Amino acid sequence: MSSPIQSTKSPQKVSPFSPSDRPSTMAAAAAASLLPSSPSLLRRSVLLSHCRRPAVSPVRALSAPVALTQDDLKKLAAVKAVEYVSSGMVLGLGTGSTAAFVVAEIGALLANGELSDIVGVPTSKRTYEQALSLGIPLSTLDDHPRIDLAIDGADEVDPDLNLVKGRGGALLREKMVEAASDKFVVVADETKLVSGLGGSGLAMPVEVVQFCWKYNQIRLQELFSEERCQAKLRLGSDGKPYVTDNSNYIIDLYFKTPIKDAASAGKEISALEGVVEHGLFLDMATAVIIAGKDGVTVKAK
Amino acid sequence: MSSPIQSTKSPQKVSPFSPSDRPSTMAAAAAASLLPSSPSLLRRSVLLSHCRRPAVSPVRALSAPVALTQDDLKKLAAVKAVEYVSSGMVLGLGTGSTAAFVVAEIGALLANGELSDIVGVPTSKRTYEQALSLGIPLSTLDDHPRIDLAIDGADEVDPDLNLVKGRGGALLREKMVEAASDKFVVVADETKLVSGLGGSGLAMPVEVVQFCWKYNQIRLQELFSEERCQAKLRLGSDGKPYVTDNSNYIIDLYFKTPIKDAASAGKEISALEGVVEHGLFLDMATAVIIAGKDGVTVKAK
Repeated sequence: MSSPIQSTKSPQKVSPFSPSDRPSTMAAAAAASLLPSSPSLLRRSVLLSHCRRPAVSPVRALSAPVALTQDDLKKLAAVKAVEYVSSGMVLGLGTGSTAAFVVAEIGALLANGELSDIVGVPTSKRTYEQALSLGIPLSTLDDHPRIDLAIDGADEVDPDLNLVKGRGGALLREKMVEAASDKFVVVADETKLVSGLGGSGLAMPVEVVQFCWKYNQIRLQELFSEERCQAKLRLGSDGKPYVTDNSNYIIDLYFKTPIKDAASAGKEISALEGVVEHGLFLDMATAVIIAGKDGVTVKAK
Repeated sequence: MSSPIQSTKSPQKVSPFSPSDRPSTMAAAAAASLLPSSPSLLRRSVLLSHCRRPAVSPVRALSAPVALTQDDLKKLAAVKAVEYVSSGMVLGLGTGSTAAFVVAEIGALLANGELSDIVGVPTSKRTYEQALSLGIPLSTLDDHPRIDLAIDGADEVDPDLNLVKGRGGALLREKMVEAASDKFVVVADETKLVSGLGGSGLAMPVEVVQFCWKYNQIRLQELFSEERCQAKLRLGSDGKPYVTDNSNYIIDLYFKTPIKDAASAGKEISALEGVVEHGLFLDMATAVIIAGKDGVTVKAK
């Protein structure tokens, strides 16, 4: 990965998630850590024009170093991502554990008046319900076919900002909403960085129609024989096939070696009849925010 | 359209569909009319190696000319197509009014012992039910991923044997099954011939997920602005959106002028997120059987 453009100076001494912190304080704490160091990586207009809050904040020093959990890192990235949000925007709301922190932050800022006139386009029923409970005004692509900014998590991020997404099962709606967005900011913790997509060894999901899913399972596995792919039907907690919001199944692909040519792979998967969508999100992200033990990193194209 | 390779000499005097005719007699009547005249269009191995029955039959002359209805023509093509079927084959069974005649013919030939050891892979719930009622042994792509021969109708046939299919609503399953078939024989009446796909002015269906279907309706219509396309959600007889066997919607595209570049169009439609499948069946048919008022025509690549 390229050198971070921003990092916390002393992350061990920052605990933006202590119970007494309000969301806006959390955001300010993250913002306070910004120290541009590699402008070539940064689309300045993205970062600067969308930074609602100034890079000053009441950062509280703790008496002892605090180890950040993976959830802490996700929150840190989420808070940073929400700085790109301005009042009046139509927002694509992602799905998954990191995206849930983003939605929570947006809800808190709407509640305390720091944001207004936001319209959210959720990418799953789960996100819809979370946003609804937080009072975020919601719409759909049907009514808002152009989205200003989408923020979502990712399962893998490669050095070119290509992604694997959809382990949460919402890949189709995420891809529809994010492809319709002028800007797409990805939030992730540093465990999601890979040298090549598929390289985590974890699932790369493919949404397929239920009809003859085994047939497509075999075809998908054969497509990636070189990467020694294992294709498995995703099961729910009840042991039955997991069914997406669109009534489809998911075939999870597990690679022994990273995908050699992700662009070709995407096209070949899409060409299989019965494949509805796949989890390769190529050339879509405009910025990726990575929270790591050493601070927050923003990479932009 | 190119010149037919086979035609009835006196079609007005042939009534293969009089009530007393059994299916096998109907088939023989159609076969009797074959007179090869344009071998270059004919993949002989397809026609000859799969002709179960000889080209002789008891053609009965009627006392007066009989006008053939569109259904008569569909039956004639269906009966001809079933001559390609041999005992022991795994068969893809299409969907629609013409395909229903094919399934009926296969069922009749199984019942009277002219065919045996057939396994059918239906392309819709409707076809499944029809075949089941006729006692045709059935399977799926999951259990039979390689199919010897698929027979199905088409909504449009262009001079290169490219097709529009799916007005019956089963385009996805049809495409999956027919793409898995060694040979794909299309049956149609002559009203289905067009100089360019989309040229009938009737629907070219696109199956889309229900999520934000309006968004895709707009995108599809914009994709074909040059052809002055109208994109409409298909409705059922109850006025509600028609739902496919895969729980999706169908957007029907109506073109004022034929699609300029069908190959590119197919790729561009497929690339839209939320599009599950489209009704352009390109470079798939190995033979097309057309029944017209002047007889039966077979075109093969």
